[in-house]
Amino acid sequence: MDWLTNSIMARHGVAGGATGSTHHLTEELQGEFHYTIGPYSQPVLQIAPGDRVIVDTMDAFGGAVQTEDDLPSARLTMPFVNPQNGPIMVEGAEIGDAIAVHIESMAPWGDDPQGACAMIPEFGALTGTPLTATLNEPLPELVRVVKLDENSVYWSDRVTLPYRPHIGTLSTSPTIDSINSLTPDSHGGNMDLPDMGPGSITYLPVRSPGARLFIGDAHACQGDGEVCGTAVEYRSVTTIHVDLIKGWTINWPRLETEDVIMAIGSARPLEDAARIAYRDLIRWMVDDYGFDQWDAYMMLSQCGRVRLGNFVDPNYTVGAGIIKTYLETGA
Amino acid sequence: MDWLTNSIMARHGVAGGATGSTHHLTEELQGEFHYTIGPYSQPVLQIAPGDRVIVDTMDAFGGAVQTEDDLPSARLTMPFVNPQNGPIMVEGAEIGDAIAVHIESMAPWGDDPQGACAMIPEFGALTGTPLTATLNEPLPELVRVVKLDENSVYWSDRVTLPYRPHIGTLSTSPTIDSINSLTPDSHGGNMDLPDMGPGSITYLPVRSPGARLFIGDAHACQGDGEVCGTAVEYRSVTTIHVDLIKGWTINWPRLETEDVIMAIGSARPLEDAARIAYRDLIRWMVDDYGFDQWDAYMMLSQCGRVRLGNFVDPNYTVGAGIIKTYLETGA
Amino acid sequence: MDWLTNSIMARHGVAGGATGSTHHLTEELQGEFHYTIGPYSQPVLQIAPGDRVIVDTMDAFGGAVQTEDDLPSARLTMPFVNPQNGPIMVEGAEIGDAIAVHIESMAPWGDDPQGACAMIPEFGALTGTPLTATLNEPLPELVRVVKLDENSVYWSDRVTLPYRPHIGTLSTSPTIDSINSLTPDSHGGNMDLPDMGPGSITYLPVRSPGARLFIGDAHACQGDGEVCGTAVEYRSVTTIHVDLIKGWTINWPRLETEDVIMAIGSARPLEDAARIAYRDLIRWMVDDYGFDQWDAYMMLSQCGRVRLGNFVDPNYTVGAGIIKTYLETGA
Amino acid sequence: MDWLTNSIMARHGVAGGATGSTHHLTEELQGEFHYTIGPYSQPVLQIAPGDRVIVDTMDAFGGAVQTEDDLPSARLTMPFVNPQNGPIMVEGAEIGDAIAVHIESMAPWGDDPQGACAMIPEFGALTGTPLTATLNEPLPELVRVVKLDENSVYWSDRVTLPYRPHIGTLSTSPTIDSINSLTPDSHGGNMDLPDMGPGSITYLPVRSPGARLFIGDAHACQGDGEVCGTAVEYRSVTTIHVDLIKGWTINWPRLETEDVIMAIGSARPLEDAARIAYRDLIRWMVDDYGFDQWDAYMMLSQCGRVRLGNFVDPNYTVGAGIIKTYLETGA
Repeated sequence: MDWLTNSIMARHGVAGGATGSTHHLTEELQGEFHYTIGPYSQPVLQIAPGDRVIVDTMDAFGGAVQTEDDLPSARLTMPFVNPQNGPIMVEGAEIGDAIAVHIESMAPWGDDPQGACAMIPEFGALTGTPLTATLNEPLPELVRVVKLDENSVYWSDRVTLPYRPHIGTLSTSPTIDSINSLTPDSHGGNMDLPDMGPGSITYLPVRSPGARLFIGDAHACQGDGEVCGTAVEYRSVTTIHVDLIKGWTINWPRLETEDVIMAIGSARPLEDAARIAYRDLIRWMVDDYGFDQWDAYMMLSQCGRVRLGNFVDPNYTVGAGIIKTYLETGA
Repeated sequence: MDWLTNSIMARHGVAGGATGSTHHLTEELQGEFHYTIGPYSQPVLQIAPGDRVIVDTMDAFGGAVQTEDDLPSARLTMPFVNPQNGPIMVEGAEIGDAIAVHIESMAPWGDDPQGACAMIPEFGALTGTPLTATLNEPLPELVRVVKLDENSVYWSDRVTLPYRPHIGTLSTSPTIDSINSLTPDSHGGNMDLPDMGPGSITYLPVRSPGARLFIGDAHACQGDGEVCGTAVEYRSVTTIHVDLIKGWTINWPRLETEDVIMAIGSARPLEDAARIAYRDLIRWMVDDYGFDQWDAYMMLSQCGRVRLGNFVDPNYTVGAGIIKTYLETGA
Repeated sequence: MDWLTNSIMARHGVAGGATGSTHHLTEELQGEFHYTIGPYSQPVLQIAPGDRVIVDTMDAFGGAVQTEDDLPSARLTMPFVNPQNGPIMVEGAEIGDAIAVHIESMAPWGDDPQGACAMIPEFGALTGTPLTATLNEPLPELVRVVKLDENSVYWSDRVTLPYRPHIGTLSTSPTIDSINSLTPDSHGGNMDLPDMGPGSITYLPVRSPGARLFIGDAHACQGDGEVCGTAVEYRSVTTIHVDLIKGWTINWPRLETEDVIMAIGSARPLEDAARIAYRDLIRWMVDDYGFDQWDAYMMLSQCGRVRLGNFVDPNYTVGAGIIKTYLETGA
Repeated sequence: MDWLTNSIMARHGVAGGATGSTHHLTEELQGEFHYTIGPYSQPVLQIAPGDRVIVDTMDAFGGAVQTEDDLPSARLTMPFVNPQNGPIMVEGAEIGDAIAVHIESMAPWGDDPQGACAMIPEFGALTGTPLTATLNEPLPELVRVVKLDENSVYWSDRVTLPYRPHIGTLSTSPTIDSINSLTPDSHGGNMDLPDMGPGSITYLPVRSPGARLFIGDAHACQGDGEVCGTAVEYRSVTTIHVDLIKGWTINWPRLETEDVIMAIGSARPLEDAARIAYRDLIRWMVDDYGFDQWDAYMMLSQCGRVRLGNFVDPNYTVGAGIIKTYLETGA
């Protein structure tokens, strides 16, 4: 794909768009999965900028939900949900740098692949939760297990959905904190942004030596907002190409596709997530594309694009983007 | 357009998709414009279901911002902003019905058309406001006046944006309240949803005899969220086709296009607007498309579409939609 | 009471603390009660600054809930709840002025007085609501009717609560809008602030000629936040003393007691209500008490007092106050 | 004090109200202070239930702000603010227990004691922040250093405030996460609740072996909400008496004083913090005081007390309480 050679990753990465060694982070190599994103866990892999990693990701239920009788409340123990691969150490990554994670492909793992989604008590957007604490009876607990392949998710007799995979959780480590894998924040985390699929490049801030990349939570498809709390959660083989951008200090995750650049904010209430994303996008346009701040602000009011990740996690995630052609200097 | 014959409007409207008389609501006929949406104003037009109305809308600044020196703080007096045409009375509309407003076309009004957007002190998403009350100095007050035509908005030497018009404010009247034209709520109002352009049908609840339709606030284009507080505000000639659906009691506005049905919520914080929209969409799928409630909830978690109207007004607006093909009974 | 002679009302009011005529706004004189606060209703009384009005207020249920079998969902029809007395016209009140409403006393109305509170479906702080829209089953609908007198509210065999009355809803009219009596905003409205009882003076902005004062919604007692959605709602005989302060343009309601001045904000989310209140308090300290803005801000961080009205209505209400002794010039 | 012998701590603690050994956690013994609350740090002290600990706490600025020229932006490096003493290990504390922390006294540390408060760029309630992200210029950065003693805080020539100390940050450790010391959550943390002063008992959930108690952030006084972002931050000698309550599994911190029990929630938006607190208080009344759930809900609507901790940190804190006399069985 041509646009990649002009991507930020290719233009500014240490490897300059080249691909180095390929590693395979298998379940065996991973050993223990992680439920918290921080600087205290043991690295499982060391890579060089430009290396490719094939990651065998667990599903968000850690494989505990295989049938529609496997109720999450019986099968899962908090806070041990949303298992993460990693940490992957990137050579040369220092605080103040950024890493680039290009998702090359996401395939279902294994034969006869399936995914699961669930309504979990007091989890989701249209129910009282531990934070939006109500006295209502919880919604019923329900599991849906569906077959899928690289074309489709076979939702029901009535509806077949396209296979549109993305990675739900992608993070570098905070400096001294360790954040559970359910919570997105400025280090990345459980953003659940459908745009973060094959063909996208995510940029994450480096806040500890080696960056400490965590990845997991593959979704075969997901609607905007992940409204019931879960997507089609599945085991994937996700291939990423990682590079390191020295000295690019970003405060929040950013994303690039062929057509769009997008800044990503995570917070509550939801308008704060949108504010973060739009402010960071404006700063990006000013710093890297030569816009005047007020021109960028007023122009985004005419052409900005907002994408809702989830509004079910402890923080909600919003992406604010602009079409790349609007970033070019006129002639 | 073929889909219209299968639209909810055509299938359930009193006029059944037929077009009756055409009225022209000129500035002269309108006389005084309205800044509050309620049951206390004098009707300007009486129409039958199926009638078409050509509406000459003012821009949201009421024409007071013609040059970049026309600062809103000097030219505008609160609460006299966002002037509305109407109320248009629909024959036979009673409390508990819905009206359908199909926007057939939106053209710039007059020769050499232009639009204006502005940064207004303490208005917008990335600034302290009268509600998100801070002690910071307001942002600078700036006006941008741009040329436009039915193809493009000529934003700057660098950027030309496509002409993608929509109606920012569309309402029926509340029963006894009268709501300023800046605030969206369950009666419609200042939703600023870019999907509400030519080709869309909006359904609004009838809460007073005759429905009392108000319309105004045309935007030549607008980004998701209308982040700086204003779109490219312009005078338009907007042609609407109006029908009446007897006995369809809806709690919030709904929208239909060729591809999608969408429920619309307006509230603060922004997650509540999204909750309203998704809940109403689920109820719609249950009532009119035969879905099980939990199936609809879980399925929207995989394929729901969220559209952000604005998050700058006293309430924020979110649409939650689903592709129509997913509503069909499988075979 | 001595402090009244030094109150803002006495020092700046047209009547200067003097008491003029006494009017009695009986149920008969009131005729139709109002469910919307605006400029379109017929005045019921004209008073001069300094006049006293004895108001016979209905309870918030309009008398429809007399026994524990009178379920609100069966007895009430939205939006016809929270009936208001008024509008009372104040001679000489013009846009830009403020009126002062000193509550002199609140007594239960009639023999053998009682009050009612209720859990109403999808209303209250610990339940999904039409705005915080969830799919949970509503909480059970329950009514509690309790005896009360001027000393106590006889809640249960187990608990007797002190009689601490206050007025839940107190408003002037907006300029052109008409706002339902459930929603507090910058014009006052359904603030449900327990501090607004006998001995308090509330200052309200005049936004239409004559101020158009509305009053209702007496509570025999109420906890902070009015968490289940209703207080001990009762019929009262409330005596107010009203004055007019010319040229005091306030943006939000303010309150004064013997010990404290308090600014009042109403908004969602709740932090915005608190921001409004604190910002207005700072501005008040700067304008009327000679504080430097930053000194006031930092000092309130050490001694400000926050009072929660309700967080159950369409807007939530917060008061931010400071003890009067801290306002005095040191010596 | 007599009430202590009837406190939950005395009635249910392993030590039953008795006082064991006294430890002194000096700066020297502490060694490195902590800026993150988690299970990965080295314990500094092991105590038995019933032991007393005298803790020499640093101020929230870590001593870096001694004069009004010591601007936080120059003197502090994020995330190294709000240093915490601990972790203190409590013998026998296991996951599912609670610990009780009775604050016996708080005295200023050292001769000629002083405190500091500051306006820090993009920190505080009335300013844009990194989350409520705006484009406004930050407020000016200002420091106020004030003298204080055990009677008063000498704020200005004009105003002297009473010395009303409390501990801003008090925590047990999460199970696997490590949370920065600025953020309150269900483990406690930076709650900034003025009620948490001498004479109060705080109950915290045990989520890791030994409880791992952290403490710091003494305030000589603080207004509700800590509106500018900082209190009068000072070095203290804080004496705590710690006990262990086996098998009392609480989800959020709770507090007891002579007069009141209070449940504490921390979240954004602010209404969610209030919802958490009120729901937990109701559950507490049901579980430990024999209330019917709906009776508790409706009764708190008449007599509940809300206390605002801060609304400036990454989460906001609210306490919901009830007067103890209302908890007693009537006779």
